[in-house]
Amino acid sequence: MQKILVANRGEIALRVMRSAREMGIKTVAVYSTADRDALHVRYADEAVFIGEAPSNQSYLVAEKIIDACKATGAEGIHPGYGFLSENATFARMVREAGLTLIGPSPEAMEIMGNKLSAKAAAMKYNIPMVPGTEEAITDVPEAKKRAVEVGFPILIKAAAGGGGKGMRIVENEASFEEQMQLAVSEATSAFGDGSVFIERYVSSPRHIEIQVLGDTHGNIVHLFERDCSVQRRHQKVVEEAPSAVLTPEIRAAMGKCAVDVARSVNYTGAGTVEFIMDDQLNFYFLEMNTRLQVEHPVTELITGIDLVKEQIQIARGEPVSFKQEDLEIKGHAVELRVYAEDPSNNFLPDIGTLQTYITPKGPGVRVDDGFEQGMEIPIYYDPMIAKLTTYGKDRAEAIDRMKRAIDEYQITGITTTLAFGRFVMEHEAFTTGNFDTHFVAKYFTPDVLKADNEDEALIAALVTEKLLSATNIKNEASVSKSETSNWERNRKLYS
Amino acid sequence: MQKILVANRGEIALRVMRSAREMGIKTVAVYSTADRDALHVRYADEAVFIGEAPSNQSYLVAEKIIDACKATGAEGIHPGYGFLSENATFARMVREAGLTLIGPSPEAMEIMGNKLSAKAAAMKYNIPMVPGTEEAITDVPEAKKRAVEVGFPILIKAAAGGGGKGMRIVENEASFEEQMQLAVSEATSAFGDGSVFIERYVSSPRHIEIQVLGDTHGNIVHLFERDCSVQRRHQKVVEEAPSAVLTPEIRAAMGKCAVDVARSVNYTGAGTVEFIMDDQLNFYFLEMNTRLQVEHPVTELITGIDLVKEQIQIARGEPVSFKQEDLEIKGHAVELRVYAEDPSNNFLPDIGTLQTYITPKGPGVRVDDGFEQGMEIPIYYDPMIAKLTTYGKDRAEAIDRMKRAIDEYQITGITTTLAFGRFVMEHEAFTTGNFDTHFVAKYFTPDVLKADNEDEALIAALVTEKLLSATNIKNEASVSKSETSNWERNRKLYS
Repeated sequence: MQKILVANRGEIALRVMRSAREMGIKTVAVYSTADRDALHVRYADEAVFIGEAPSNQSYLVAEKIIDACKATGAEGIHPGYGFLSENATFARMVREAGLTLIGPSPEAMEIMGNKLSAKAAAMKYNIPMVPGTEEAITDVPEAKKRAVEVGFPILIKAAAGGGGKGMRIVENEASFEEQMQLAVSEATSAFGDGSVFIERYVSSPRHIEIQVLGDTHGNIVHLFERDCSVQRRHQKVVEEAPSAVLTPEIRAAMGKCAVDVARSVNYTGAGTVEFIMDDQLNFYFLEMNTRLQVEHPVTELITGIDLVKEQIQIARGEPVSFKQEDLEIKGHAVELRVYAEDPSNNFLPDIGTLQTYITPKGPGVRVDDGFEQGMEIPIYYDPMIAKLTTYGKDRAEAIDRMKRAIDEYQITGITTTLAFGRFVMEHEAFTTGNFDTHFVAKYFTPDVLKADNEDEALIAALVTEKLLSATNIKNEASVSKSETSNWERNRKLYS
Repeated sequence: MQKILVANRGEIALRVMRSAREMGIKTVAVYSTADRDALHVRYADEAVFIGEAPSNQSYLVAEKIIDACKATGAEGIHPGYGFLSENATFARMVREAGLTLIGPSPEAMEIMGNKLSAKAAAMKYNIPMVPGTEEAITDVPEAKKRAVEVGFPILIKAAAGGGGKGMRIVENEASFEEQMQLAVSEATSAFGDGSVFIERYVSSPRHIEIQVLGDTHGNIVHLFERDCSVQRRHQKVVEEAPSAVLTPEIRAAMGKCAVDVARSVNYTGAGTVEFIMDDQLNFYFLEMNTRLQVEHPVTELITGIDLVKEQIQIARGEPVSFKQEDLEIKGHAVELRVYAEDPSNNFLPDIGTLQTYITPKGPGVRVDDGFEQGMEIPIYYDPMIAKLTTYGKDRAEAIDRMKRAIDEYQITGITTTLAFGRFVMEHEAFTTGNFDTHFVAKYFTPDVLKADNEDEALIAALVTEKLLSATNIKNEASVSKSETSNWERNRKLYS
C-alpha cells in the first residue's frame, strides 16, 4: 500500500495522514466546498473535491470516495470515525472495487452495528450482559412481563439506536406501559425500526471501554481500558486511561472479554468494546465500535502504540506489532474535547473566525486539531476544535498538566468549552475518581463558571494592588501579570 | 516554596514555569529591554525588569536577580542553563540572601566547574579517565615528556575551558612544542588561566552523557544516557535517548560511574555526567554539568520523569520521587535544536520577524520554544528558536516522527536549521547509528541541501503533471499539493 485516501476531515484526517507520512505512505484528502482551505487538504499529498458542504453531498457519498481512489490510484481507504466509518454497505463497495478498507470486514461491522446481533455474537463467549431481553420486543404486555422479571428501575433502548436516542428509564411497574409505547414510537420515527430491548437500569454507571486490535493472522490483543464516564447528554467530553477505579484483576477480566467479543466476529483492525460498570465494579457488555475512536490518543500515550499505524499494517496483512504479554500501562493520560460551544449558554455551538489560536506546548501535552489562527469553524460539521491530551507519570500529574495546558490555550473569536474542561479538572468528584456518567448533569451549571470568574477577578485585583505597592525596582515596576498577560487573561475568561 | 523566580529567558524559562505552574507554584520572570514582549514574561505570574539587553547588564547580574526575588517574595531561584546556572559565586550569594537555589551547592559547582578538581574528585571512585595528565601543566618540556608517555595523537585542553575553546589535537611529537605554546597562550587570553592538560585523543568519539539526580537525603540515581554525538563545532545539535549503541551492561556501568561522580561531591539536584566513548565502547569521564541540560526532554520522554519538578522537590528537601530499580527506559526520543541560522551559508545567524510560525502537532511531538508568530528573534542571545523533540516506540519511529514534524514546522521570515535537521535524520550514518562527533564535519556540506531541493522539485513537477492528467473529478481537478500546501512548500525549502 503506497497511497491511501482518508475519507474524513478535520483533526482525524490530519491524525491519520501524520501516521501515513511517518510510514512513507502518500495520502489523498477529500474535501467539500466548506473545506477548500482546511488543513487536511493542505497536509495531504493530493486532494480531491467531492461536493457541497452538507455531508450527504460529499463525505457520506460512498461512490465519490471510491471514484476519488480510482482517480488518484489510492489503494486503501481510511474512514476515520463518523461519516462512512461503520457503514457495512460502504465497506462492501470498497471490497468490490478492489480496494482495501483500513478497518474490519463488512460482516463484522454488520453484526456489531446492531445491538441485538452484537449481543447474540458476544453471548457465545459468555460475556456478562446487563440482565434484560435477549431479543427485540415491540409487544407491550410481553415487555412488561419481562421488565418485572428483570426488576425496576429498567431501561428501554431502541435496538437500532445510538447516542441516547430512543432511551427511556422506567422507575416502576405503574408507568411502564406508557413509557414503552412512547419508546417504540420514538424509535420508529427516528430509526424506521420500532423494536426495543429492555434491561436493568444501572443507576451509577461508569462507561469503560477496551481498545482491541485484531489481525488477519488470528491474533487479537487488547490495549487496556479508557474511562469515558464524563459525558454530556451521552456524548463523551473527557476521557482518560487507565481508569481511576479498575483493579488489575478486573482490567484483565475486561480485556479478556473484549478480546472474546472481537473473536466472535473474527475482528480485524482497531475496534472498541464498550462496557457499562456499576459501583460494585460489575461490568456488562454494551456494544462494539468497529472503527478508531475519537479518544484513541489516551491509549496511545499510556502504551506507546500508534493505533493508526497498527490499523494500516493490519490492512496490509501484517500481524499486530506486539504480543499481549509485552504490553503494559505506563503513566496516565487525560483527553479533553475542546468544542466551539458556549458552556455558559447551554453549550450552544458557536461559529466564526479563530482570531487568536495558539495551542499549548511543552512536556506531556499533545494537541490534535484541524485549525490554524485565522481559520473559520464551519457550521456544517461537528463543532470540535481540538482534542487536548495530557500525559503524566500518574493521574494527578496528567490532571495538573491538563489544567496548565487549558490555561495556555489561547483562543479568541470563538467561545469554547475550555472553561468547562477546567471545571471538570478541578472538581473533587473528578480528582478523587469518584464519578459516574451523571457527573456533568449532577455538578455542572453555568453559575459554576461565573463564580470562578468573580473569585479570580477579586484575587487578581488584590494581588495587583499588593504588587504595585511592594515592588519598584529600578525605573520599571514589577509588571503584574494579571494586567498584561494574554494567557492570564485567557485563564480568567475560561476558568 | 510558594513562589520561584526563573533567572533565565526563552524556552527554558517557559519550560521551568510550566512545571512550576503544574505544581501550583507562582512564578516570577525577569527580563531585559530586548525581552519586554517575550513569552516568558507573559507566562509568569509576575515579571521584573532587570536591565539592558546585553546579558552582562541583566541576566548575568547576580545582584539584580536577588533584588528581584526580595521585591517579589520569591523564595527560590531556578537558573535554567547558561547565564548564572553554573556560577558558584552566584550560588553563594543566593544562600547568603536566605534564598534557595534550585540547583546543587556552590561547593559542588566549584569542584565540577574546574576540569582538574572535577577529575580529582571522580578519581576517588576509580572512574575511567582518558589517559593523560592528572594535573594542570604549563611547562612545555614536562608536557612533552607526558605526551610521549600517553601516546600520540594527543589532545591539549585548557583547564578552565569549555565549548571547544583552547583545544588542540597534536598528531605527533614533532609538532608538539609549537602547539603546546599556542594552546597555553590561547587559554591565557580566553580564560585568564594558561594551565592545560593533555590526554590521549580519541579519534572516533561519541559523546554520551548520563543524567543524575541527587537529593538531600543522600539518594543519588541516574536516568540513563543521552547520546549527543551529532555536534557542529563542539555544539550539540541533535540528541537522543537512549543511545543507539549502548549495551545494557555498559549502560549500567556508566550509570554507576555517573552516580559515583555525583556522590564524590555530595551532589544535590539535577546534573549531567559527560563521557567520551571510543568505537570499542570504552568510556572515559569528561566533566559534569551542574545544571539542567538543554537536551533534558529526551530523558523525560523515555522515563516519564519531569526533571524540573524533581529539581524543585529536591530543593524543597523532598527525596527523589522514584527508586533506581523502578526506573526503566520506554521507547526512544530524538531532539533537534532549531536555530535561526542559515545552514547553506555556514550557519550564519539570521535575525528578523517570524512571519509564519506554526509548530508541528499530533502524536509523539513535543515543542519547547519561546516564540509566537509575529515575534522577533533578538540578536543579543543564543539564536535557538525551539527544541523539537519526538518520541516513538523505537528509534526508527522517533526518527520517522522527527522527519514528519520537521516537514510540518512552518517558519517564514527567518532562515532556520530545519533543513539541516532533515539532512541528519535521513543520513545513513545517523539512521544506522554508525556515527561519531565528526558526523557533521564529515558529511555535511551546503550542497547536500541544494541537491535535495533539486531532486524534490523535479519529482514534484513530475507528480503534478501525472496527477493533472489523471484526475478530473466532477468540476474540480485534483489539487496537487506541491502547488498549494504551505507545509509542502516548507518541506521543499527545508529538505
